[in-house]
Amino acid sequence: MSFKNDAFINALFRRPTKYTPVWIMRQAGRYLPEYRALREEAGSFLNLCKTPELACAATLQPLQRFSLDAAILFSDILTIPDAMGLGLDFIEGEGPRFNKSINSLAEINKLIIPDPDHDLTYVLDAIRLIKAKLANKVPLIGFAGSPFTLAAYIVEGGSSKNFNQIKKMLLDAPEILHQLLKKLSQAVILYLNAQIKAGVDVIMLFDSWGGLLADKDYAEFSLNYLKEILKNVLREYQNKSIPSIVFARGSGARLLQLKLLSADVLGLDENTNLALARNILCPQFILQGNFAPQLLKEDEATIKKEITKALEIMKGNPYIFNLGHGITPDIDPEKLNFLINEVHQQSLNWV
Amino acid sequence: MSFKNDAFINALFRRPTKYTPVWIMRQAGRYLPEYRALREEAGSFLNLCKTPELACAATLQPLQRFSLDAAILFSDILTIPDAMGLGLDFIEGEGPRFNKSINSLAEINKLIIPDPDHDLTYVLDAIRLIKAKLANKVPLIGFAGSPFTLAAYIVEGGSSKNFNQIKKMLLDAPEILHQLLKKLSQAVILYLNAQIKAGVDVIMLFDSWGGLLADKDYAEFSLNYLKEILKNVLREYQNKSIPSIVFARGSGARLLQLKLLSADVLGLDENTNLALARNILCPQFILQGNFAPQLLKEDEATIKKEITKALEIMKGNPYIFNLGHGITPDIDPEKLNFLINEVHQQSLNWV
Repeated sequence: MSFKNDAFINALFRRPTKYTPVWIMRQAGRYLPEYRALREEAGSFLNLCKTPELACAATLQPLQRFSLDAAILFSDILTIPDAMGLGLDFIEGEGPRFNKSINSLAEINKLIIPDPDHDLTYVLDAIRLIKAKLANKVPLIGFAGSPFTLAAYIVEGGSSKNFNQIKKMLLDAPEILHQLLKKLSQAVILYLNAQIKAGVDVIMLFDSWGGLLADKDYAEFSLNYLKEILKNVLREYQNKSIPSIVFARGSGARLLQLKLLSADVLGLDENTNLALARNILCPQFILQGNFAPQLLKEDEATIKKEITKALEIMKGNPYIFNLGHGITPDIDPEKLNFLINEVHQQSLNWV
Repeated sequence: MSFKNDAFINALFRRPTKYTPVWIMRQAGRYLPEYRALREEAGSFLNLCKTPELACAATLQPLQRFSLDAAILFSDILTIPDAMGLGLDFIEGEGPRFNKSINSLAEINKLIIPDPDHDLTYVLDAIRLIKAKLANKVPLIGFAGSPFTLAAYIVEGGSSKNFNQIKKMLLDAPEILHQLLKKLSQAVILYLNAQIKAGVDVIMLFDSWGGLLADKDYAEFSLNYLKEILKNVLREYQNKSIPSIVFARGSGARLLQLKLLSADVLGLDENTNLALARNILCPQFILQGNFAPQLLKEDEATIKKEITKALEIMKGNPYIFNLGHGITPDIDPEKLNFLINEVHQQSLNWV
């Protein structure tokens, strides 16, 4: 598989790259005026996700504007619980909400494991459309939420301030939580493999809420399921190797545990000390992320200086530049443009 | 200085101990019926803190019930902002609230640095009373909040869900935040030195909200102030060496940064991987804490097994047993009793 811009795929396969590749979590997002217009046209966030032509357009928007080195499918991690029949809705300013929350074994037993070809066709159609439009300009990342992260939303019935329901279930009925996590793992495996067959070049798992877990609970309730998924996801499809990325948000305090993952890339949040992560995780993993999103509100001199710091720490180790979490709506797109070009320029011909 | 029970002080000075010492954050707290009675008698939490006889009684309660190896002054980190004139109140079920929040340089300039002998006499009186009553049974820990943690409460005007105000100030007006942090550092230094002169044997800094900071901001807004305080706090008073403990909650992802602290002990939260912390921080530091507080809701067999795990990881390194954060009101005191005795028994004659 070759791409017109091969910086990202070369980094994933530990080959020399012309510069440090950059992509940005939530790169198609509300900070872009053209995205806000598209979102308006779609009527709702969910409709934007569910209409392949619109999801394709959203995916491509940031690539038209910036020198990004990867595309990521425009979608949401909650498409799986939605396809399980939980009735997803996004309430303005509040975040995701399900029609019902799931708290008992009886309710968990009733949940179906979605068949992606039938229940998530819109995602696969979007992928096929995006791949055609991308014409191998850059690789396309597909993704899913980690089972624990999905379970957190499902048990709470949507987004939550303190996630008391899932914490309570973990303590009072861990075996019931495991039933849910097993079902979600199966769903994620099927979903990611369907994405691979539809054409994505890389898969990514978002363990966005694994950081809620105490260190002693992390392996049992999140890490083991990530391992299970990585073991069962296609590593190769039609002679194409599919690299994997795990974004272990909030788990910088347990990097030793992350070493048990068979992923190619580990994504780091901005709370993690990059030098520490490099010392512990490299060369086993390619690292990605860690740049503080709020830095995009600073002036260019500050952004430039912080890029130099990160690149200096990672020099000699494969590294994919990204933020520590998704870009926020209040960022000036010009600042992101500056960041991307600056990373490319500073790292040119380094490796 | 010698104590009838010298396990804790010996651990602090890296001398052999008869067993691994244990104390518990918030050991005088609502999980104890005798504490709830005392709190009732006092009328309010704040009155309990401000009445030396009652604060002394609260401090001693857990020692009468359990084989704890240290006493910690019954007080609150918000005594300093209260003495600065911010008008502290504790609202049932809501947490601390100030009469006003501080958001401008003009307001910061008006804040006084409390003179502990005059403005926090009740704390010093409580210490003197506790020391007399303790009669050198176990050492007494004095404490203060870190400047960043105090600033977070002061800028928000009390407890907060997402700490948006302090995050905004950090971004929009870092120089103003530094003015507040400098003032608070001065206040903390004076306060801790007054506590030492009143008789505490060990001092502890609670960086409870340092975890809010991105890795790149941690040194500038929290760590440097902790260093400044540690440099200016009395290391010796009347021929008695005063060891120091820093509880760096939420900072397990930047253990390398913590190595710059001149503290004797680092307290760890339950999200931190203990083996990782040991590899990075020992033997430079004595470690403390990390045991998941929710484990006290499990059965004795589980608690026992998890104690064994922690002790095995720390074997051969000086270690003070404690939870990863304060004990919660829903814990059965008998479970804590089991934990303390189990730690002592399992570690007997280890070192």
